Amino acid sequence: MDPYTRLRDLHLELPAAAQAPPAFVMASQTGNLVFLSGHIARRNGKPWTGQFGLNMQTEEGQLAARSIGLDLLATLHGYLGDLRRVERLVKLLCLVNSAPTFTEQHLVANGCSELLLAVLGEAGRHARSAFGTAQLPLGACVEIELVAEVRAR
Amino acid sequence: MDPYTRLRDLHLELPAAAQAPPAFVMASQTGNLVFLSGHIARRNGKPWTGQFGLNMQTEEGQLAARSIGLDLLATLHGYLGDLRRVERLVKLLCLVNSAPTFTEQHLVANGCSELLLAVLGEAGRHARSAFGTAQLPLGACVEIELVAEVRAR
Amino acid sequence: MDPYTRLRDLHLELPAAAQAPPAFVMASQTGNLVFLSGHIARRNGKPWTGQFGLNMQTEEGQLAARSIGLDLLATLHGYLGDLRRVERLVKLLCLVNSAPTFTEQHLVANGCSELLLAVLGEAGRHARSAFGTAQLPLGACVEIELVAEVRAR
Repeated sequence: MDPYTRLRDLHLELPAAAQAPPAFVMASQTGNLVFLSGHIARRNGKPWTGQFGLNMQTEEGQLAARSIGLDLLATLHGYLGDLRRVERLVKLLCLVNSAPTFTEQHLVANGCSELLLAVLGEAGRHARSAFGTAQLPLGACVEIELVAEVRAR
Repeated sequence: MDPYTRLRDLHLELPAAAQAPPAFVMASQTGNLVFLSGHIARRNGKPWTGQFGLNMQTEEGQLAARSIGLDLLATLHGYLGDLRRVERLVKLLCLVNSAPTFTEQHLVANGCSELLLAVLGEAGRHARSAFGTAQLPLGACVEIELVAEVRAR
Repeated sequence: MDPYTRLRDLHLELPAAAQAPPAFVMASQTGNLVFLSGHIARRNGKPWTGQFGLNMQTEEGQLAARSIGLDLLATLHGYLGDLRRVERLVKLLCLVNSAPTFTEQHLVANGCSELLLAVLGEAGRHARSAFGTAQLPLGACVEIELVAEVRAR
């Protein structure tokens, strides 16, 4: 199965790819590695705000992380033209907006990891780090960046 | 225009490259990728301390991030011998010392991104993540690390 | 001297390699680069918990970081089959669970950097960033991820 079939089977649609401000780009390639900028969680086109341990629960965070997973795929689709060019995801860095009492950053991050595995299959396997940030841009609850290995066209 | 001409046009001078303590190095190369260690903001040779949302404003933070941009270029110049060997910047990670209320890490990071674009031109384009840390080494207000693709001599 | 001789001379034994949950892997390779997932500090098989500036001191943190260094080597040994295949460590990212008052993340990180240098020698040299997180998964005091360049078998 290819990623587009899996997306359809999961009743998921790729959102529009995020636009970067003038100072940077959302995807940068060197050789066959593509580095994606940190994508903050969005809901209804606006930052999905909140801080875990303060006003947000792990379950909602998993949905936010899952939505970032879709956004990362949208950026890869837009950049590569075809998600089947993803040879493998290599590494995720998962930033979780955390009060000092919250210790389930790994469970939040699973929302993204599991979505990427479900859509990309074996090519979606990745190494990962997750940790708690004091805050994130625009008050977002989660931000995730990614390194992927890609095939030439 | 080359980076040294642009630096002169911007009335900027490269500072002395930062020295790493014995336990690590400021630049590490694998293939044609150079990974620079996190550079903390410095002013008058000492750590530029402060925390956003507590005792530091976004505007001052942009100047601190801009000064780190110059320090990163100084490290690249020292390591490569010639900034024209930078094929492209690939990825920045921008750590912003933040109280839990501060949500403008991306605006602080722009101070560095814009300086790098101004000096390196198209080769300065990069992907980027910015987030709020609970604290930074020596109380620094900003710390930035970088991955660059370089050309052989 | 090879890394196994150095480990014996230091009276150190490699622990069992950490197992990753289903959602991700502890080591991911692209070309000759291996990215290791963030490894949290463990003691007696359980997360080594604590927050610097609250209930943990720098000296204990250096021991925790040193133990992560051994865990990273165990993961590399398990993944590569032979630590002599490490051409060089490239980059460490050291996440230090910090109250807003703690500013010695770099000293904590030295515990890991120095262990890696002691075991791998010149191949252990690396670039590095260290910073304070608001919290870490399972309340761990330190988490460290690593990029290494490896040789083919």
